[in-house]
Amino acid sequence: MSTAPSIETASYQPPSWEVILAAHARIATKIHRTPVLTSASLNAGNHGGAVACAAAWRQIPAWVVMHKNAPAVKAKAIEGYGGKIVFCEPTVTARKSACDRVQAETGAHLVHPYDDDRIIAGQATAAKELLEEVGDLDAVFAPVSGGGLLSGTCLGSKGIRPDVRVFGCEPECADDAYRSLTSGTLQSLDSSDTIADGLRASLSPRTFAILRRHVERILLVSEEEIISTARRVWERMKIIIEPSSAVALAPLLRPGVVASLNLPKRADGGAPKLGVIFSGGNVDLSSLPWK
Amino acid sequence: MSTAPSIETASYQPPSWEVILAAHARIATKIHRTPVLTSASLNAGNHGGAVACAAAWRQIPAWVVMHKNAPAVKAKAIEGYGGKIVFCEPTVTARKSACDRVQAETGAHLVHPYDDDRIIAGQATAAKELLEEVGDLDAVFAPVSGGGLLSGTCLGSKGIRPDVRVFGCEPECADDAYRSLTSGTLQSLDSSDTIADGLRASLSPRTFAILRRHVERILLVSEEEIISTARRVWERMKIIIEPSSAVALAPLLRPGVVASLNLPKRADGGAPKLGVIFSGGNVDLSSLPWK
Repeated sequence: MSTAPSIETASYQPPSWEVILAAHARIATKIHRTPVLTSASLNAGNHGGAVACAAAWRQIPAWVVMHKNAPAVKAKAIEGYGGKIVFCEPTVTARKSACDRVQAETGAHLVHPYDDDRIIAGQATAAKELLEEVGDLDAVFAPVSGGGLLSGTCLGSKGIRPDVRVFGCEPECADDAYRSLTSGTLQSLDSSDTIADGLRASLSPRTFAILRRHVERILLVSEEEIISTARRVWERMKIIIEPSSAVALAPLLRPGVVASLNLPKRADGGAPKLGVIFSGGNVDLSSLPWK
Repeated sequence: MSTAPSIETASYQPPSWEVILAAHARIATKIHRTPVLTSASLNAGNHGGAVACAAAWRQIPAWVVMHKNAPAVKAKAIEGYGGKIVFCEPTVTARKSACDRVQAETGAHLVHPYDDDRIIAGQATAAKELLEEVGDLDAVFAPVSGGGLLSGTCLGSKGIRPDVRVFGCEPECADDAYRSLTSGTLQSLDSSDTIADGLRASLSPRTFAILRRHVERILLVSEEEIISTARRVWERMKIIIEPSSAVALAPLLRPGVVASLNLPKRADGGAPKLGVIFSGGNVDLSSLPWK
């Protein structure tokens, strides 16, 4: 492709600073700096890793009870922070008894992943940062599992902008939050084999109370939508999100969904501005959710 | 893990705004907002995509000549912007004749991927943005192939901070820039089968002239280092970079390399501050470079 005139190395003058400034000015309105993308919500990862990391800051030990079929990359991150992992069978009963045993043996305090006001307050900082940076959002979307992140998203975003609408997004095959908010009674989750491995817990009375007050409604997504959304984000945004994160964006890619949300018309007459909270990027890179 | 006291839904008070502010203040020194990560250099992708995108802005047609073994994701991005792809055999001769034919048939202007001052000026904007945002960098690292991005990195970063050192990073098995700068004579590249598919071109007299003046030296990296660096960035930074981007970070992960660069001591006595330019994130997600 070398049809440009040949250049004498010694006498060649590279583009001047003025030329570079002009190039920059020319593209300035077209390029995006999107620091929201790299906010704490994305980089903090998941609860076990966050607890291990926080314990490391304070130089105190941390034990993390996790299901033995959790992604290896989560365990690796926890161990990287110096956390001690206690694996258990993937049932609520096994998890509870492992927690009880660790507490009895070590005297450790329990830091529940969502049924704890301190955790919810921490989760709220992600939406607070988002609304501080993009103040005129009409609605915010977050995944829901035990409801800690979604509770925090309600409190954090409405603290900055009280009339912002908050929606929860949930896998069809782990739909306890949807059923709870629809029926008005806390529903349990019998089983959940969604690929969104971070969304297999169910609401507690604490998070149900917050969601009832603040969430517009819960949007359900299929397993297929979760996978195709994750892949689309990887390809287009060049960021790694786990399937649980993709759940929050997936309903918005379905035609007609945004219109069905009945968001108030914007004063500027423009399309609604929507914010999405991604909850983590823990993916086992040797075993991707697509072929 | 539900050992927290049970909660009466009706009377429960969620964490107050003050509690959220306190939580945020507590972690504020520990969390990072790193907008540099998402600068144009990362999102702009590669030359063919950039040309197709720019042509679409102006509503003019664009033909992109590319090797038939280029990653499918690059072709997909180009077509997404409305670019017309002309595939050719993966040789310099085939590429040149395809370019000549397209120009003859369509009257199109050639926009060479690096042997063009306008392209170099555009490439310079990435380092300019980086230095504008992190003004006290001691050194900047960029991959080198045809030398356009590295030339722009020299001009863009030294325009903001004249005494910053610039290093080029190159695959061992496509080492023409290393040999050119070491010998002082422009060297050609007979073949290159590096996994860094964006780095298979060789310097032109134009880029050689700039690099001779401004680059400290070229650092070589093995194929194994490229792959392990890319994977590490995906896992830890949660961003998708292509192997060609990983080349710029790979030498810095090798023990002893930073000390060997002989960077001037910082006035503040701290460790050297290094900036790395990632050149793109085009990866075929169905065929990753690791197992």
